[in-house]
Amino acid sequence: MEISLENIKDNLIKGLPILLYDFDDRESEVDMVFYGGSVSWKSIYTLRREAGGLICYVTGLEEGKSLGLTLLTEEWSNDSRYLKLVKKPVYGDLPAFSIWVNHITTRTGISDEDRARTVRALHDIVVMMKSDVERSREKFWDEFMAPGHVPILLSRGIRNRRGHTELVTALADVLGLPRSMVIAEMLDKRRSLSLEDAVKYAKVNDFPIIRGKELLEVIKIVA
Amino acid sequence: MEISLENIKDNLIKGLPILLYDFDDRESEVDMVFYGGSVSWKSIYTLRREAGGLICYVTGLEEGKSLGLTLLTEEWSNDSRYLKLVKKPVYGDLPAFSIWVNHITTRTGISDEDRARTVRALHDIVVMMKSDVERSREKFWDEFMAPGHVPILLSRGIRNRRGHTELVTALADVLGLPRSMVIAEMLDKRRSLSLEDAVKYAKVNDFPIIRGKELLEVIKIVA
Repeated sequence: MEISLENIKDNLIKGLPILLYDFDDRESEVDMVFYGGSVSWKSIYTLRREAGGLICYVTGLEEGKSLGLTLLTEEWSNDSRYLKLVKKPVYGDLPAFSIWVNHITTRTGISDEDRARTVRALHDIVVMMKSDVERSREKFWDEFMAPGHVPILLSRGIRNRRGHTELVTALADVLGLPRSMVIAEMLDKRRSLSLEDAVKYAKVNDFPIIRGKELLEVIKIVA
Repeated sequence: MEISLENIKDNLIKGLPILLYDFDDRESEVDMVFYGGSVSWKSIYTLRREAGGLICYVTGLEEGKSLGLTLLTEEWSNDSRYLKLVKKPVYGDLPAFSIWVNHITTRTGISDEDRARTVRALHDIVVMMKSDVERSREKFWDEFMAPGHVPILLSRGIRNRRGHTELVTALADVLGLPRSMVIAEMLDKRRSLSLEDAVKYAKVNDFPIIRGKELLEVIKIVA
């Protein structure tokens, strides 16, 4: 099965979701993905109604570090207490979580509108970073509050970790988009949605679905 | 309107939800509430399908401190960087978040089954704490990993904060249950669910609904 990068980019820019499966030997989960720059309250509504997992904002570790953020697992390497909780899950590598934030203009932080607002403000900062790192950093610490309702995931790059976080930033790179994506795991009743059912869902809704393996081929990295 | 504590306790023990509205002058949000000791994957499914907000585990600040946890806002009072993000939301008081965890026996941490497993293991620890604080603390640091998919909220007590976190632990106290609850905000399309619509929903589904004001009267605290 061949994936059409043009079709994927077109969907993302239009504010439509794409689906992304990682690997059989990893989480074996499908995430629903929106482009950060095209997120509206409807995207958040779709993520919580149709996907059901945690609605996370994804950018690069590099972008995170420019803002003064890093991975919590890295942060906790100097914290003798929390370090005890840094354990590897069954699928192998440490989580991509940084902190959880709300934009200061949100009301309680959780509604579709509030989470979309937080995401859009994060997106604006990631875009601003390219022209004015210092201003984007100031803006981040001034205009966000924490702990909030939108987790920030930071990608270590697909050569270092093969999670959904790294796959979507690799995809953003291939498509020439800023590393600014919103993802949530697709859930079934009780368990995560199977790849088979995700493929059916993608077909019915005409959403592109990509497997990590296919994406690695496109970007010429052998798994 | 009178609330029946017996009916509420009965629902919670049976693993059925109750609804809890805070105050007109605060978040004006309704949370769906399950008792931690009765949570199954079906409760998590119901919380994400019917409520839609963040699925959080609630216990007391006292219980949290016994485990060696505290509020992130308190933790960050010694962190010159994160302190900049500690801002008060429009409704007034600082969030109740501690860290986010997964139980080590979970697969990816996010499915209904995995989140239920994490919640039940947290519940067991809160119960164990009453007879053996030290063992419960050891068990926590040995058997959980972080950062994970279930946020722990710590209640400062209803005299100090009037949020859903404090209302549910006050309710647990009144009902003679351990402070061990699972909550999520009820959302409508785009916005949080209105009290009016939550009342209708409660009626249709025969779920008890309590207002913070009523609860304060029951526990004889004047707002």
